[in-house]
Amino acid sequence: MTTEQLHTYRQELYQHLTKELLPFWTARTVDQTYGGFITHFDQHGNDTGEDEKSLIAQTRSIYTYASAHRAGYGNGQLANLARHGVDYLLSRMWDTEHGGFYWMTNRAGKVLIDEKIVYGQSFAIYCLSEYTLATGDPRGAAYAQQVFDLLQKYAVDSAHGGYFEMFHRDWTLKGPGSAGSDRKTLDAHMHLMEAFTTLYECTQQPIHRRKLLEVIDLLVRRIMHPEYGTGVPQFWADWQVAPQIKFDIIWGWDRFTEDGVKRAAEDNTSYGHNAEFAWLLMHALDILEIPQDTYREQLIKSFAHAIDYGVDWEFGGIFVEGSHSGAVYDREKEFWQQAEVLIGFLDAYRLTGDERYWDAYANVHRFVVDKMMNHTVGEWWPLMTRQGVPIWTHMSHSWKINYHTVRSMIQSIRRLDLLLAER
Amino acid sequence: MTTEQLHTYRQELYQHLTKELLPFWTARTVDQTYGGFITHFDQHGNDTGEDEKSLIAQTRSIYTYASAHRAGYGNGQLANLARHGVDYLLSRMWDTEHGGFYWMTNRAGKVLIDEKIVYGQSFAIYCLSEYTLATGDPRGAAYAQQVFDLLQKYAVDSAHGGYFEMFHRDWTLKGPGSAGSDRKTLDAHMHLMEAFTTLYECTQQPIHRRKLLEVIDLLVRRIMHPEYGTGVPQFWADWQVAPQIKFDIIWGWDRFTEDGVKRAAEDNTSYGHNAEFAWLLMHALDILEIPQDTYREQLIKSFAHAIDYGVDWEFGGIFVEGSHSGAVYDREKEFWQQAEVLIGFLDAYRLTGDERYWDAYANVHRFVVDKMMNHTVGEWWPLMTRQGVPIWTHMSHSWKINYHTVRSMIQSIRRLDLLLAER
Repeated sequence: MTTEQLHTYRQELYQHLTKELLPFWTARTVDQTYGGFITHFDQHGNDTGEDEKSLIAQTRSIYTYASAHRAGYGNGQLANLARHGVDYLLSRMWDTEHGGFYWMTNRAGKVLIDEKIVYGQSFAIYCLSEYTLATGDPRGAAYAQQVFDLLQKYAVDSAHGGYFEMFHRDWTLKGPGSAGSDRKTLDAHMHLMEAFTTLYECTQQPIHRRKLLEVIDLLVRRIMHPEYGTGVPQFWADWQVAPQIKFDIIWGWDRFTEDGVKRAAEDNTSYGHNAEFAWLLMHALDILEIPQDTYREQLIKSFAHAIDYGVDWEFGGIFVEGSHSGAVYDREKEFWQQAEVLIGFLDAYRLTGDERYWDAYANVHRFVVDKMMNHTVGEWWPLMTRQGVPIWTHMSHSWKINYHTVRSMIQSIRRLDLLLAER
Repeated sequence: MTTEQLHTYRQELYQHLTKELLPFWTARTVDQTYGGFITHFDQHGNDTGEDEKSLIAQTRSIYTYASAHRAGYGNGQLANLARHGVDYLLSRMWDTEHGGFYWMTNRAGKVLIDEKIVYGQSFAIYCLSEYTLATGDPRGAAYAQQVFDLLQKYAVDSAHGGYFEMFHRDWTLKGPGSAGSDRKTLDAHMHLMEAFTTLYECTQQPIHRRKLLEVIDLLVRRIMHPEYGTGVPQFWADWQVAPQIKFDIIWGWDRFTEDGVKRAAEDNTSYGHNAEFAWLLMHALDILEIPQDTYREQLIKSFAHAIDYGVDWEFGGIFVEGSHSGAVYDREKEFWQQAEVLIGFLDAYRLTGDERYWDAYANVHRFVVDKMMNHTVGEWWPLMTRQGVPIWTHMSHSWKINYHTVRSMIQSIRRLDLLLAER
C-alpha cells in the first residue's frame, strides 16, 4: 500500500459518492405528491412506476440521508430529505392500534401488507436512531424506542432466547414453514445488532446496551458456525440448524431452486454477509467501548473465510456464497456483498495489519469502481456475471435502494482517511 | 377412600377456613391508619408492631381475599378487603417514574427498599389479575399488564431465555453473587407460570398465553431435573446448575449454613415445591385448555418423588427437603409445604387414580388439622419438629401471611367436592 494508492482510492470513492451516487438520489427520490420516497428506477434511472413503498426501502433511505448528513455531506439538504422520509414513515406506516410499522404501502400510502416483520422493524430502529443523532429531532428516538419495546414484548423467545421474526399485524406469530414463525435467522439477528448499536449510541440507555450485548452473545455463540466462524443462515426456534428456505415475505433476491430450498440448504454461507457481520460487530464494540480483542477470534474467522474463499483474484470482486469449509457455490457478483466487503476488508486490515486484506480491498475496489458502478447513471448494477457483465439491470427497487452503496462509500472513505492520517 | 372420609375431611377444612382462618385475618389485618395490611402477628395473633409492608405480603393478601371472594366466601366483605389492599399497592408501592412495584415500605408507606425483584413482581401480576377476575375492577388487569410488559423488556434474558430476577429501582441488573443477578431460580420461574396463568385467564391475550407456554417449556426442559423431574433451585444465566446460595433479598426463611450456602448446594430439592409445581402446571394446562397428558411424565415424576421420599408415614406430614435421588436432609415440618402437598396429592390422585396419593393426602391432612393448625388463634404454626412441636411460633410475618394456608383450604375443598360429586 502506498500513500498515493490511498489517495487515489479515497478520491475515486469520494467522487462517486458526491458527484454520482448522492445526486442520483436527491434528483429523483422525493415523492412530491404522496410524501416519502420513490424507490424503483430502471437502468437509466427512470421511475418504473411500481406502485409500492416498502418498509425496507423507506427506512433504508432515511438511514442513508441521515447518516450522510451526520458524516458531513449534502450541506443540510440530506437532513431535510431524511425528515421528509420520517414524516411519511410515521404518518403512513406506523400502526396506531397495535404499534410497529407495516411492511408495505402503495405510493399513496394505502397499506398493502400489514404484517410486522422483525427485519423491517430493525431497520426502523436503525434509521430513526440515526435520524435523531443526525438532526436532533426527538421523534426518531421516541419511535425507535417504541419499536424496541414492542420487540422485547412480542418478538423475543423467552424460552430459547433470540427473536421470532414473522408476525401478523397484531403481533401474533405467523405460521411455520415459509410463513417463517418457527425459524430464526442470522439476517434478522445481525441487523438487530446493527440497529441496537445505533439505538444505544443515540439513547445511552442501559437496557439498550444490555440487549445489544445479548444479541452479540447470541450471534457469536449460536449463529456463527462453531468451527469456521461463518454465518449459518437459518435455525429452528431451539437453535438447531434448519435447512435454508425461502420465506413468503422476502427482503432480497436470494436465488432458490423452484421448491424454495437452497441447493446446499444446510451448508451455505455468504462471504459478504460474514464480512458485514464482522465490521458491524467491530463498530458495535467501538460504540460499547469494549476492546476489539474480546471477539478477536470470531472477527478473524469471519474475515479470513471471506478472503480465503470469497475473493475472485482472477476477475475481481467477491463471490456470492459457498460452503462453510470453503467450496464456492455461486461465482456471480452481487452489489451488496461488494459494498460490505469494502468496509470489511479495511476493518480487517485495521484489526490485523495483514497486507492481504489491503490487497483484497484493492481487488474489490477496482471491480466496483471499474465495473459495478454505473457511472453515467449514478447507482450500481445489482448483479453481474463473474466477469462483470450486468445480469440484472435495475438501479433500484424495494430490496436494493441506497443503504449498502452509500454506506459503503461513507464508511470506506472514513477508514481510508484514518489510514492516511496514520501516514 | 370412603364417602364418609371425604365428607369429614371436607368439613374439617371448611370449618377451619370459614370459622378460624378467614376470621383471623378479617379481624386484624386492615391498617385503618395508613391503608394496606398489617401482616405481622405473634403466636397469640397480636400485632408485633414490625414497621414494614413487604410487596410479597401485600400482594399475597390481595390474592387471598380476591380468590376467596371469587370462590364464594365472605359475602362480599373479602372483595372490599382486596380493594383496600389494591388501593395501597397502587398508591404507595408503584414506582411512577420507572414502573414496577417497590420491594418494601414501612407501615406509613415510606419506601424502604426500592429494588425491583421479579419474585415480587410475579405476585403483583398474580394478585392483580385475580382481583380483576374477582371484582371486575379494571385497575387490576391494567397494572398486571404493565408489570408483564416491564418484565418482558427488562427481565427477560434474550440471549439464553428465562428471566433475570434482581434489579435496581431503574431496572438495571444488580450485581452477581448474593445480589443475585447472575442466577435464575426455579422459584421465580414457577411463580411466573402461576402469575401468567391467572393473567391469561383474566385477559385472554395471545401474548400472555404465548409467554405462559414459554415459561412452562423452560420449567420442564431446563429447570426440573432431567432424570428425577424434581426442581433444581438455582442456575447460572446459561442454565448450568449453580450451587444454591442465600440472596441478599429473600422471601422465605430457608435455612442455610452460616456462609449462606446449603449443605447439599447442588443436590437439593423441596418435596412441597415439587408438588406445588405439578399442581400449578396442571392448573395452567386447564386454563390453557391443553390436555394434562401433554406433560404426564413430568407431572408424575414430580408427584412421585414427593410421595416416595417426602411423606412422613410415622409422624405425619411432609418433610422439608432432600436429594433428587431420594435421601431426606431435613425432617422438620414447615407450613407451606404441607399446604401445597394437600392440593398436590389430591391432583395426583385426580391424574393417576392411584390410592397411594389419597393415603398420602389423608396423612398430611391429619397432621395439618391435628397439629399444624393453631385452632384457638386461627393460623398455622410456621415450623414444627418432625413430631409436631412448634419451633417458630409467629402466626404471620412478611414471608408467611395467608396465601399458602387460605389457598390450600379453598383448592383442597374444591377438589374434595369434585371427588364427592363423582360418587
